[in-house]
Amino acid sequence: MLRPSRLRERVIADRVAAYAALDEALVCHVGVVVEGRPHVLPTLHARVDDILYVHGSTAARILAAARSQALPVCVTVSLLDGLVLARSAFHHSLNYRSVVIHGDAELLTDAEEKTRVLAAFVDRVGIDRSEQCRPPSSKELAATAVLALDLTAEGTDVALKARTGGPVDDEADLALGHWAGVVPVRLVAGAPETAVDCGRPVPDGLAPTLR
Amino acid sequence: MLRPSRLRERVIADRVAAYAALDEALVCHVGVVVEGRPHVLPTLHARVDDILYVHGSTAARILAAARSQALPVCVTVSLLDGLVLARSAFHHSLNYRSVVIHGDAELLTDAEEKTRVLAAFVDRVGIDRSEQCRPPSSKELAATAVLALDLTAEGTDVALKARTGGPVDDEADLALGHWAGVVPVRLVAGAPETAVDCGRPVPDGLAPTLR
Repeated sequence: MLRPSRLRERVIADRVAAYAALDEALVCHVGVVVEGRPHVLPTLHARVDDILYVHGSTAARILAAARSQALPVCVTVSLLDGLVLARSAFHHSLNYRSVVIHGDAELLTDAEEKTRVLAAFVDRVGIDRSEQCRPPSSKELAATAVLALDLTAEGTDVALKARTGGPVDDEADLALGHWAGVVPVRLVAGAPETAVDCGRPVPDGLAPTLR
Repeated sequence: MLRPSRLRERVIADRVAAYAALDEALVCHVGVVVEGRPHVLPTLHARVDDILYVHGSTAARILAAARSQALPVCVTVSLLDGLVLARSAFHHSLNYRSVVIHGDAELLTDAEEKTRVLAAFVDRVGIDRSEQCRPPSSKELAATAVLALDLTAEGTDVALKARTGGPVDDEADLALGHWAGVVPVRLVAGAPETAVDCGRPVPDGLAPTLR
């Protein structure tokens, strides 16, 4: 019987955990190089199977660069889970999960795929929300730029990093009289606020990735 | 009497608001160019007056590049404030505040300034926390890399962007039977968890920037 190596198990686990972190985060930060300088823009993303889609409406200059060829990007997602307070200043830390993806993104042009992706973006704010609103017109579809990044492509690197647990103090510091521990941190959704010109009841399933 | 122009007022207001967003965010995303490709790393930051300091411990390759000369960076901070649900898929949006800073960062070498900055980093997790823990040794100081970015330097650009308020639907969509509104989102601190090997009471003032 073939047993998967420890390394392979780790890689698979990391991919599952990386995808989970991508799916939980509502915002990613996209880095591109424009005229030799770095640019980092926050935007929406949605993962569908092994493709990461990034909303590009706010990055006109960046998208222009992607029109002619695949665009080298770094897409980073980070989730803050806690503040770690140690007895020493030096060992203060943060609990977090981050995914850093290096790859070449392509501008999505296929109208059918784009329709599916925009639905995926909308479904991130509410379960089945894309079926509970007016779908995009062809004009709206054309006005929405989307970058696609194949997470399994050769040359694409997906790296998950995480810190969990309590402070790790030096042995010599344990006797110091300072409090040590973790302040858990999380993104939460408040009570939905209905638009003033809307008389409809609040739907279920809003903000599905928030606890 | 000289009256400040509308533009000047706007710029000043933006700087105050940009600094407030920088101070509220616990994590920033630093973009650099390494061998022609973009790299985006989440890390800690602290603003002291007009200098933004960025913790560089996780970015060895990046810092190596900064050792010889000022490093072109893009530091982006984003705060998610709400999910905006419109009647149309197209007008779904996010409420947010973001600050995108372009400039040249320098590696901090002055030990005294570094000591003050590390205290500022630690004070971000609790009021006066830097006085309630063991200060860094000279060895620990040397092991901590910090990038400094003068926010008022010529060539440094600080851009605040924000979206607030409810959905903005097309007139023709207002009669549609879909709920529209905002789901407010915020980062909150949970109950502090004391380390298993610590018998001290939880101090006041933890996570001061979280609501």
